[in-house]
Amino acid sequence: MVQWKNLDTLSTYHALFDLKESVDLKSVMSGENGAKRVAEYSVPMACGLAYNFAPKQVDDKVLDGLAALAEEAELTDKYAELYNGAVINTGEKRLVLHQLTRGQLGNDVIADGVNKREFYVSQQKKAAEFARKVHAGEITNAAGEKFTTAVQIGIGGSDLGPRALYIALENWAKANNTLKMEAKFISNVDPDDAAAVLGSIDVAHSLFILVSKSGTTLETLTNESFVKDALEKLGLDPADHMVAVTSETSPLAKNSGYLAAFFMDDYIGGRYSSTSAVGGVVLSLALGPDIYARILDGAAASDKLATNKDIRKNPAMLDALIGVYERNVLGYPATAVLPYSQALSRFPAHLQQADMESNGKSVNRFGEPVNYQTGPVLFGEPGTNGQHSFYQLLHQGTSIVPLQFIGFKDSQIGTDVVIEGSTSQKKLCANVVAQIIAFACGKDDDDKNKYFEGGRPSSIIIGEQLNPESLGSLLSHFENKIMFQGFLWNLNSFDQEGVQLGKLLAKRVLAHETDGALKALADLFEI
Amino acid sequence: MVQWKNLDTLSTYHALFDLKESVDLKSVMSGENGAKRVAEYSVPMACGLAYNFAPKQVDDKVLDGLAALAEEAELTDKYAELYNGAVINTGEKRLVLHQLTRGQLGNDVIADGVNKREFYVSQQKKAAEFARKVHAGEITNAAGEKFTTAVQIGIGGSDLGPRALYIALENWAKANNTLKMEAKFISNVDPDDAAAVLGSIDVAHSLFILVSKSGTTLETLTNESFVKDALEKLGLDPADHMVAVTSETSPLAKNSGYLAAFFMDDYIGGRYSSTSAVGGVVLSLALGPDIYARILDGAAASDKLATNKDIRKNPAMLDALIGVYERNVLGYPATAVLPYSQALSRFPAHLQQADMESNGKSVNRFGEPVNYQTGPVLFGEPGTNGQHSFYQLLHQGTSIVPLQFIGFKDSQIGTDVVIEGSTSQKKLCANVVAQIIAFACGKDDDDKNKYFEGGRPSSIIIGEQLNPESLGSLLSHFENKIMFQGFLWNLNSFDQEGVQLGKLLAKRVLAHETDGALKALADLFEI
Repeated sequence: MVQWKNLDTLSTYHALFDLKESVDLKSVMSGENGAKRVAEYSVPMACGLAYNFAPKQVDDKVLDGLAALAEEAELTDKYAELYNGAVINTGEKRLVLHQLTRGQLGNDVIADGVNKREFYVSQQKKAAEFARKVHAGEITNAAGEKFTTAVQIGIGGSDLGPRALYIALENWAKANNTLKMEAKFISNVDPDDAAAVLGSIDVAHSLFILVSKSGTTLETLTNESFVKDALEKLGLDPADHMVAVTSETSPLAKNSGYLAAFFMDDYIGGRYSSTSAVGGVVLSLALGPDIYARILDGAAASDKLATNKDIRKNPAMLDALIGVYERNVLGYPATAVLPYSQALSRFPAHLQQADMESNGKSVNRFGEPVNYQTGPVLFGEPGTNGQHSFYQLLHQGTSIVPLQFIGFKDSQIGTDVVIEGSTSQKKLCANVVAQIIAFACGKDDDDKNKYFEGGRPSSIIIGEQLNPESLGSLLSHFENKIMFQGFLWNLNSFDQEGVQLGKLLAKRVLAHETDGALKALADLFEI
Repeated sequence: MVQWKNLDTLSTYHALFDLKESVDLKSVMSGENGAKRVAEYSVPMACGLAYNFAPKQVDDKVLDGLAALAEEAELTDKYAELYNGAVINTGEKRLVLHQLTRGQLGNDVIADGVNKREFYVSQQKKAAEFARKVHAGEITNAAGEKFTTAVQIGIGGSDLGPRALYIALENWAKANNTLKMEAKFISNVDPDDAAAVLGSIDVAHSLFILVSKSGTTLETLTNESFVKDALEKLGLDPADHMVAVTSETSPLAKNSGYLAAFFMDDYIGGRYSSTSAVGGVVLSLALGPDIYARILDGAAASDKLATNKDIRKNPAMLDALIGVYERNVLGYPATAVLPYSQALSRFPAHLQQADMESNGKSVNRFGEPVNYQTGPVLFGEPGTNGQHSFYQLLHQGTSIVPLQFIGFKDSQIGTDVVIEGSTSQKKLCANVVAQIIAFACGKDDDDKNKYFEGGRPSSIIIGEQLNPESLGSLLSHFENKIMFQGFLWNLNSFDQEGVQLGKLLAKRVLAHETDGALKALADLFEI
């Protein structure tokens, strides 16, 4: 049995403080030492990616310290407990099974009398079959015409992950002539969100995917009504245009109002649900079931890598350990994810949820307050765009923000131009490597306005191309990184009680059951 | 003459530390006191907006302290220096004149022998006239057909601000039947960005706006070539489809390769250029010159308000002072902008540049290192979406992140549904006010996993509707807030030397003039 202990009760954690500031990044990244470091401080990831941590403030001693911490914290044993079906989500007393949607890492997991791997696979097959029928014109609108657009109605985990993955592969699929349907997303309760999406699509040829595990999410049910109104105004029957993704026990599950229902369960948290039916239905419709299966393969390969006890062979665990070292030993409060890939433009928003919602907690998995910092603020935008924006602060501001770069050798579409002897893709790659060195090594200048202190740590994930497999690998890498960090901080990374109070108070406002400041604020909005 | 002094040389700054932790937000926002506070701690902004700071950790004593700081730091006098044409951008020895694009606050500013207000107005008139001719079909493609799409090619300030403003008003304009042309944006040097946008538009009926002050921005010139290739492949002459926005001295200024050229100058920084020709051409084309003029009117009214010496009548200055109090006295390292308006989905990305690029500095305006924290990390996403994502950390994480909410009573499109007795718009507003109270007051619970500490500060800007005037007012509010914070930190908020080193190193990489770690990293990308 593993021991669940607070980070500050581990002796290997305290030992790390003796190593603090032992690595002068500017110096170790300079000259031929730097080249050697780049070669050595690289760990293969699944599907041809590599995690390079040469520009981090670590050396072999720090790495040994982190390896000792990984062992004392029993990280891979805890991971094994998770994928073997232990109740890891202690608050809600639930198993945590998103890895089972893409592979079988350990023992069969039987819950509620069901083999859960078989259950998830059955839902994938159902979604794949449904998608194939839609693509083949066997499932059509009432006029017998093919559906051309898939519209996901969901919020939070039912929106950010699937949306980020769709955007990540939309152009790749177009370039490979495999895009089956356009996907759109309605999420916000702001009525202008639904109205704008409905105004931009051919409603009569659209299939709407209502995604809510509980079947009670306010935003999603409201937006469903919006869509039903729009369909009815065109004389169409909503039941011909809607499917549901929900739990088997929800009011949406057995409902004649939907063409079909696809199931997930309580063992998959919203922010980890991209590889369940929550992502599976829309991505199978838009990209096709075969491409979706390749995303799952990439994620499964990455999950397997995360079982390795050796931190030099387990990039997710290493990334997690370095992140905790930066947060708790070096004291950096924020981190940025910077993909040099326009296709990953919404991937930081997905990671922002995955990370901040999982580990933005102040109590441990037993509900006891912790005495150390937990999850950092996470933000990001694609490069090179960010270089012309907030990078100024990252380079010369008074706070150090550790950076996570992502870059690919090849573009997705393949159209390119040569200007001044190089393609745009080469320029993109040249910029990301230049940034890493600029942040690490800085630049002396007598004009202090043009002086760069350097010593600003980063890492980079490098791949050949952003394709279904590498995207799946990337997704799982970050999910597992967040899981390992949750283990280190001794948090329950799989509940989100912090979202409840706002919902409760909003209900009171709408019911006019308020007083004091809440009533005064509601009055300002004439609610 | 004003005195430019570091923040920590001001006695009123040090006096603020005695007031630290004097305000228990939970207590002052509870009960009828809270209602009183909401009524009192509100400052009118231009164009019907109001800045409500009741949920901030301030009281009358702190406000008096901040008023004293504003006076000692000579904030409004410094602002007057700026709009009267002093060399505020000390590093680059330039005037700072973006306010002049939308009004005349002080003396005539004559620079380079020209009345600058007249110069900016002349460019606005030129853009308006050009847009009217395009809309009327007097300027067409070679086949004599109307242009339907305007595509901005620019990066950083030439992209984020204009894009955020277009998205903010696109649906409003559609709902009011005033959208003249669709706008698209190409920014990233990633070749997939340009290829995807070109694949999504009718190139033969598109007008491209090349935006680069210097005429030498790598990304923008590369993307211009991309677009020219696409036009030539269709047998079209790029000169019939392109206009330039640039400085009069740039290589793009007098160039037969463009249908027309519109000018800006060195006195307008990229991130402050939305109200210059940089935003003016694309917004006049897309929304029409009259709507664009209304954005300018909103910004001008807000600029005027910022001249007020009384902090209770100067919302931008008050917002700036509270932000510095939070950053330097209370020690919060990050801040989030959370608009409850899907139309403002990219407004946080614009503010991220405006704020972090302006005040992410470690040296004062004389190039001397400062001994205090300057600009915070700024991030944000629209609500209610964020509630289902990173709000978990904001509510229950170990770091306090001050929040800037924005909300409007009315939607833009006006289509809505009633579910459980309320419209979506009311639900949206109910959620934002509920969040404010949840953050401020928290909730006791014996289950510490469901316990909310409270004491998490926010403010809210409330308006009737997001329309051209209120959008202009909002834009100027934040520009002036950032300016006042730069004055307090004694920074030059108008240069961006931190972006130079990366550019330089990227050039070296592309020229293969590298060694050590930079070469090793470049080799990994096979550059």
